[in-house]
Amino acid sequence: MRTRTLRIAMIGTGFMGRMHSHAWRTAPRFFDLPRDVELTTLVGRNGVVTERAATELGWLEHATDWRDVVARDDIDGIDICTPGDSHAEIAIAALAAGKHVLCEKPLANSLAEAEDMAKAADRSDAVAMCGFSYRRTPALAYARELIREGRVGNIRHVRAQYLQDWLSDPDAPYTWRLDRDRAGSGALGDIGAHSIDTAQWLAGDEIVGVSAALQTFVVSRPVMESQQGLGGIAVADAERMPVTVDDAVAFTARFRGGAFGVFEATRMATGRRNANRIEINGDRGAISFDFERMNELEFFDATLPKSEQGFRRIQVTNAEHPYAGAWWPVGHGLGYEHLFTHQAVDFVRAVAGEAATEPTFADAVVVQRVLAAVEKSAAEDSRFTPVESSN
Amino acid sequence: MRTRTLRIAMIGTGFMGRMHSHAWRTAPRFFDLPRDVELTTLVGRNGVVTERAATELGWLEHATDWRDVVARDDIDGIDICTPGDSHAEIAIAALAAGKHVLCEKPLANSLAEAEDMAKAADRSDAVAMCGFSYRRTPALAYARELIREGRVGNIRHVRAQYLQDWLSDPDAPYTWRLDRDRAGSGALGDIGAHSIDTAQWLAGDEIVGVSAALQTFVVSRPVMESQQGLGGIAVADAERMPVTVDDAVAFTARFRGGAFGVFEATRMATGRRNANRIEINGDRGAISFDFERMNELEFFDATLPKSEQGFRRIQVTNAEHPYAGAWWPVGHGLGYEHLFTHQAVDFVRAVAGEAATEPTFADAVVVQRVLAAVEKSAAEDSRFTPVESSN
Amino acid sequence: MRTRTLRIAMIGTGFMGRMHSHAWRTAPRFFDLPRDVELTTLVGRNGVVTERAATELGWLEHATDWRDVVARDDIDGIDICTPGDSHAEIAIAALAAGKHVLCEKPLANSLAEAEDMAKAADRSDAVAMCGFSYRRTPALAYARELIREGRVGNIRHVRAQYLQDWLSDPDAPYTWRLDRDRAGSGALGDIGAHSIDTAQWLAGDEIVGVSAALQTFVVSRPVMESQQGLGGIAVADAERMPVTVDDAVAFTARFRGGAFGVFEATRMATGRRNANRIEINGDRGAISFDFERMNELEFFDATLPKSEQGFRRIQVTNAEHPYAGAWWPVGHGLGYEHLFTHQAVDFVRAVAGEAATEPTFADAVVVQRVLAAVEKSAAEDSRFTPVESSN
Amino acid sequence: MRTRTLRIAMIGTGFMGRMHSHAWRTAPRFFDLPRDVELTTLVGRNGVVTERAATELGWLEHATDWRDVVARDDIDGIDICTPGDSHAEIAIAALAAGKHVLCEKPLANSLAEAEDMAKAADRSDAVAMCGFSYRRTPALAYARELIREGRVGNIRHVRAQYLQDWLSDPDAPYTWRLDRDRAGSGALGDIGAHSIDTAQWLAGDEIVGVSAALQTFVVSRPVMESQQGLGGIAVADAERMPVTVDDAVAFTARFRGGAFGVFEATRMATGRRNANRIEINGDRGAISFDFERMNELEFFDATLPKSEQGFRRIQVTNAEHPYAGAWWPVGHGLGYEHLFTHQAVDFVRAVAGEAATEPTFADAVVVQRVLAAVEKSAAEDSRFTPVESSN
Repeated sequence: MRTRTLRIAMIGTGFMGRMHSHAWRTAPRFFDLPRDVELTTLVGRNGVVTERAATELGWLEHATDWRDVVARDDIDGIDICTPGDSHAEIAIAALAAGKHVLCEKPLANSLAEAEDMAKAADRSDAVAMCGFSYRRTPALAYARELIREGRVGNIRHVRAQYLQDWLSDPDAPYTWRLDRDRAGSGALGDIGAHSIDTAQWLAGDEIVGVSAALQTFVVSRPVMESQQGLGGIAVADAERMPVTVDDAVAFTARFRGGAFGVFEATRMATGRRNANRIEINGDRGAISFDFERMNELEFFDATLPKSEQGFRRIQVTNAEHPYAGAWWPVGHGLGYEHLFTHQAVDFVRAVAGEAATEPTFADAVVVQRVLAAVEKSAAEDSRFTPVESSN
Repeated sequence: MRTRTLRIAMIGTGFMGRMHSHAWRTAPRFFDLPRDVELTTLVGRNGVVTERAATELGWLEHATDWRDVVARDDIDGIDICTPGDSHAEIAIAALAAGKHVLCEKPLANSLAEAEDMAKAADRSDAVAMCGFSYRRTPALAYARELIREGRVGNIRHVRAQYLQDWLSDPDAPYTWRLDRDRAGSGALGDIGAHSIDTAQWLAGDEIVGVSAALQTFVVSRPVMESQQGLGGIAVADAERMPVTVDDAVAFTARFRGGAFGVFEATRMATGRRNANRIEINGDRGAISFDFERMNELEFFDATLPKSEQGFRRIQVTNAEHPYAGAWWPVGHGLGYEHLFTHQAVDFVRAVAGEAATEPTFADAVVVQRVLAAVEKSAAEDSRFTPVESSN
Repeated sequence: MRTRTLRIAMIGTGFMGRMHSHAWRTAPRFFDLPRDVELTTLVGRNGVVTERAATELGWLEHATDWRDVVARDDIDGIDICTPGDSHAEIAIAALAAGKHVLCEKPLANSLAEAEDMAKAADRSDAVAMCGFSYRRTPALAYARELIREGRVGNIRHVRAQYLQDWLSDPDAPYTWRLDRDRAGSGALGDIGAHSIDTAQWLAGDEIVGVSAALQTFVVSRPVMESQQGLGGIAVADAERMPVTVDDAVAFTARFRGGAFGVFEATRMATGRRNANRIEINGDRGAISFDFERMNELEFFDATLPKSEQGFRRIQVTNAEHPYAGAWWPVGHGLGYEHLFTHQAVDFVRAVAGEAATEPTFADAVVVQRVLAAVEKSAAEDSRFTPVESSN
Repeated sequence: MRTRTLRIAMIGTGFMGRMHSHAWRTAPRFFDLPRDVELTTLVGRNGVVTERAATELGWLEHATDWRDVVARDDIDGIDICTPGDSHAEIAIAALAAGKHVLCEKPLANSLAEAEDMAKAADRSDAVAMCGFSYRRTPALAYARELIREGRVGNIRHVRAQYLQDWLSDPDAPYTWRLDRDRAGSGALGDIGAHSIDTAQWLAGDEIVGVSAALQTFVVSRPVMESQQGLGGIAVADAERMPVTVDDAVAFTARFRGGAFGVFEATRMATGRRNANRIEINGDRGAISFDFERMNELEFFDATLPKSEQGFRRIQVTNAEHPYAGAWWPVGHGLGYEHLFTHQAVDFVRAVAGEAATEPTFADAVVVQRVLAAVEKSAAEDSRFTPVESSN
C-alpha cells in the first residue's frame, strides 16, 4: 500500500550523504519497520556530481534544486545533510510543505535561526528531528537507561571530552568546516555540540550557565587544487585560507540540578582520533564512555560492597541492550554507521507514531543556546554566562 | 553489459545467510567493484521460511532445491551458508557446473570431504574461496602486512585464544552446533578453526604437529519448543539432547619454521563474549589482537630504543590501512559485518581476476588437516600428532 | 665521618609522617647516596602519641616543640609534614637556623606566606625543597625527558584531571582537610596543586591566566567520636561540622607559550580512587598518564608513518628509565611510596650539591600564584584572571 | 624480652637477598607483628662481597659458611635465597637444628629432593614455608576469597600465562638460570612454577595430569666478562655457554575437580615484561589478573542481570582487601616488593602461631610433582602424564 512507504529526498552528497544513504538502505533489513523506505531523490547543487552519487548510493533519481523537491507531492521526508548555513531555509520550507524532516546537527549556525526552525516545527504536525546521532550508540542509550533508573544517583560531575586530531598537522588542508560563515563555529559546533547534547540527554538535565574559552592554534591552512568539500567557498588564487573558527574550546558548566560540568572539544589533540568521551559521577555510581571503544560502557555501582566495587566493562551487544538485538551475537561489535541506521529506524517509527521524536528541534535549540552562551562567554573574558533564548 | 553482473545464489537462511545478504548488498556501495552484484536467488529447504527471508534480506527470488539452482545458466556464483555436513556435496556440484563458490568455514566436517572439495576446485577454473572471514578484519590484515615486512622478525610464539561463553549456562538450549553429525565438532571446528587459519595466515607458516585435549563440560542440553536452527535434527519428544561435540579444546603446536603455538578455543569461558585473540612474538617485535576490540591492533617494535618500547594501540581506521579507506574518517570504527562485506569485495575481485583467491579451498584443507590431527591427538592421550593428508 | 650524616627531624606524625619515615629509611638501601641519613627526631604536639610513633616509625628520639628542635646544632634537615597553616612559620625559622628544609605541599595556605617562605629560602644557602612528590614518578619523569627532547613538539593541549572519590559519600566523616583555616582550600590545594605543578613542570612552561569555578556539593560532614586527624580543630559537641572548602574545582588555563589547559580536581568523582591524570598534545606527539596505573606511560609519536601511529604503553620499569634502575627487574612495578623514597634521594643529593633542588620554594610559589588566581577567578564569576604575585 | 625477637639469618646476596632484606626491614614498620625482627646475619660464599652486602642491606653481621650459622643458638630463622641446587641440603640441616625456614621457590631442583625436604618439615615443629610470593599479591589473595565464597562457581577453565621477554634478544648474556644443574629447569621452574602454585591455590584444587611441550629457541648465550650471578659455574674461556634449560613451556592440565587448564610460560615473549596472568572461569563468574597491573583484579559476576554483566576492574587497594589496609589510601598502588613484605609478615605470624603456614613444603611438593610430570610428558611426545609422587 502506497501510504506504507516513506519516500525520502536527501539533500547533500558529501560524507554525511553517503552515511545517511547507507542508513536508509540498511534500516529496513534489520529492523521491523512500520513503513517501507524508498530512497527516492538525491539533491545536490552540481548535477553531474549528484547524478553519479545517486547511482553509487542507490537513489532512484537526482535533482539539483531542493526547492522543487520540497514542493513535490511524492516525497514524504526531507533529510538535510548540507553545511549548517542552509539548514534553516530548507527545514522551514520543508516543514511548511508538510514534510517530515531529519536535519543534521548542529541545527543551525546561529541561535536565532535554530529558534525559527523550532517554531516551524511547532507549527507543523510532521516529525522534525535533529541528527544527534550519538544518542543512537547502544552503549550511550544503555547508559541513559541506567541513569534514569537511578543507578548513578544524584549527579555531581559531568565530564565530556571530544578529542580529535585531524587538524593537528598545521598543513592539513583547508575545508569549509574552517569557515565561520559556512560552519558557524569550529570544534565547538562540529563536535562540542555532540558532547552538549549527549550530556544533557544522559543527565536528564539542562546546562544553565557556562564559562568558556576558545582557541585557534593554526590561523591559516593551505588550499588543495581541485579541492572537494569547500561547499562553494571562493578560494580564488589563494594558497592559504584564513581559519575563522576555533580549533578548540573548553568550558565549565552548571546544570539546573546542581551538577558541575567540564567540557572540552578539539580537533588538535594529537593521538586522539575520535575520542568522544563522557563520564558522569553521581552519589550512587558512575558511567564512563569513549567512542573509540563504542561497543563498551564502563559502569561503576557504588552500592555494591566496597571491596567489590570497580568500573565494569559492559559489552553493550546483548539482545537486552538498546538496538543491539537486531544485530549480531553478543560480543560481535557494531561500527560507526550503525548510529545512523538506528537514527533512520527511530525516524521512521516517529513518522508512524510508534515512538516519540527524539531529539526534537526544540531539544536541539537547547544545545544551540549553550553554543551561543559559550561563544558569548569566550568573547567576554570567560565570564560566567547564563544559557538563555535569543530574545 | 550483462557479463558485468555477478549473479549470486545463496544457500542457507540462518544467521550467516542474513550476514552474507548484507555483505552482497553493501559491498558495491562502498567499494569500486569490477562487477555489479545481483542478489538473485535465496535457497532454503522450507519454502515458506525461505520466501519470507528472501523478501526481508533483499533477494530477487527464492528456491528450495539447491540442485536446480546450481544447474541454472543465469547464476554465476554460489554462496554456501549451510551447516558443514552439506558443504562438500553442494560445492563439488557447483564447481562442476562452472560456478564460482564461496563456502562458509570450516570447509567440511571431515578431512576427506575437504580434500575432495579442494580437488574439485583444482579441476575448475572458477573461484573457490572459503569463508575465513576474520582475515578481512582490517587490524589483522594490517598485522599480516607488518609481519610480511619483517617487523616482527623470526616468529617464536603464536598464542591464539578464541573464548566465548554462550554455552556457559548449563541450561543454554540445544542447537545443531552441538551435534557431531551436523557440525563436525564443537568449539574446535566452529571457532578453533578460525584461530588456526588466522595463525597460519599471519605467520605465513604451517602447523606440522599438535598435542591436543578436548573437553565437554555439559553433556546434554534442553530442547526448546519450536526451536529454530536445529537444521533438521529429529528431536522428537526428548527434553534434553546429548551434546556430542567438544565444549573446549586446547593444543600446543609446532610450526614448520620453528614457532611454538598454544591454542585454546571454548564456548564456556564465562565473561568472554567473543574474545578471538591472537598474539605473535618474534625476535624483532610482536602483534596482539582481540576481536572484542576489533578496530585496534597492538604492535610492539623491539627495534626501538629500550626505554621507548611498548605495545602501541593502533586504531586500524586510517585510509592507509587495509579496507579502511572505503569507510569512515579515522577513529570511527567498523563492526563485525564489515568482515563479510570485505569478503564479498575480495570474492568479486577474484572472480574478475583482479585479485588472487584467498583463502582457497586448498588453504582450508590445510586448516582441516590440523583439525583432524587435533582430534586424533586428543583421542590418543594427547600424544604429539603430525599434521598430514588423509591418505 | 660525622659530616657525612644528614640528621633529620621530622614534624608531623600523620599519614605523611609515616610515608616520609619509610622514605628516609629506604632511600639509602637502594640508592648510592652521598650522605648517610639518620632519622634523628620525630616532633609532634602530643608527647604520648609522638613517642609511640617514633618507636613505630624508627626515629631515635621524639620531641614536642618544633622550635627547640629547629634550634639544635645536631640536626641538619627539617622535614615539615604538618597541615599547611604552620608551614611558613616552621620553614622560615628552620631556614633562619641554617637547616635544610623539605616542606610538604602546598607550600602554604596563602600566597603571601608562600612568598615569604621563598624569600627566606633566597636568603639561605640551605636546600629548600617543596614536596611535589609526583615529579618523582618514574613515568612522569620519563615523560618530561621525552618532552624536553622535543618528542611532543610544540605543546597545544594540557589536560589534567585529578579525580578521587573519598568524599563521594555525603556521610564520609569530617577531617581537617575540610576546614579552610587549616587546609587553605579543598580539592584545589590538596590535589589540584599537584596537577598544576606537574603540568607546568612537564610542559616547561607557566600558566599566565585562568578562568575557574569551585563547587562544594556537601556542605557539612559528621564528626566521628575520638576522631584522629582533626589537627586541633575544636569540634565541641557538634554532630556535623561545616565544610568550608571546595569539593571540586575546574579551570581553563593559558600558558605563556600558547598552550591551552583544562584542569579539574575533585574528591567526589565516584569510582575514581586516585586518578591523577595528565595528557599533553603537541604537534609532534603526545603523552598520557594516569596514576592509577603509575608504572605506565602512554606515548604517541606523530612522526611515525601514519598507519603505524598509536599510543604506546611503555612500562617505565627499565634500567634506562628515571629512578627505575635502582629497583626491580623490568615489568615489576613500583608503588606509591617510591615517590617519597625518590624525593628523599633527590633531597640528599641536593644537600650534597650533587643535584639541583627541584622543586624549589620559588617553583612552589609559582603554583601558589595559580591557586590564588583560581580562587580569585572563581570569586569573580569565573572571569579570566592573570596569574601574578601578591604585591 | 628475648623470646619476642625473631633473629634471621639469610643465605644468598643476589637479587632475592636484596628483596628479602627490604621485606624483613619493612614488615614490622607497617604491620603489627607478634615478634620483633632482627636482621642478624647475612651469609654468602664470598666474604668480601657478603660483608659489603651486609652493610648495604642492613644486616648486623655476615658469615661465609651456612653450616656454622645454622648451628648457632642465637638464630631463630633461616631464609634461603640461593639457587635451587642447594635448597635441600640447607633446609634439611636448618630444620634438623630446630630453625624456622623460609625457602625460595621452586623448593628444589628435583622432586626427590623436594620430597625429602617436606619429610624434614614433617619431622620438625618449626615453620617451613616456601616462597611462592605471588600468593601475597593483594589482588590474588582477594581473588582467592571470592573463589572460596563461591563467586566464580564451579570452575571449568584455568588459563595461566607467565610471559617475560628478557631472553628475547639472542645475545642476552648467559646466567646460572640457563644451566640445568643450577636452576633445575628454565621458564618451567622459574616462572611456570609460580603459575602452577597460583592456579592450584586459587582453584583450591590439584592438577592430576598434564600434556606438555618444552622449547629452547636459543641454544647458546654469550658470557660477559667478570659476570655476576653465575653462581660458581666455571665458564673458563668459553665465549658462549650452552643453554641447557627450556626457554618456553606449554601444557594442558586436568584438575581433580574437572577443570581444564592451559598453561604457558616463556622468557621470550617479546613485549611482555612480566605478564604473570591468570584467568579462571566458572559457572557463576570469572576472575582475571595480570601482574603488569598488579593492583587490579578483574571480576565477572555472571549472576547479575545479563545486560549489566562485565569484567569489573577492582582496584585492590581498599582497607577491606587483604594486606592493603596496612598501606596507603585507596587507589595508591603497591609495588612488587610488597609481596615479599607480606610474606615476611605471614612468616612471623606463623612462627608465633597466629596463622597457618602457607604454603608449606608439602604444598610446594605438589607443585614440584607437576613440574616433574611436565618434564616427563615433554620427554614422551607430550603424552598425557599423571601427576604423582616420585616413588
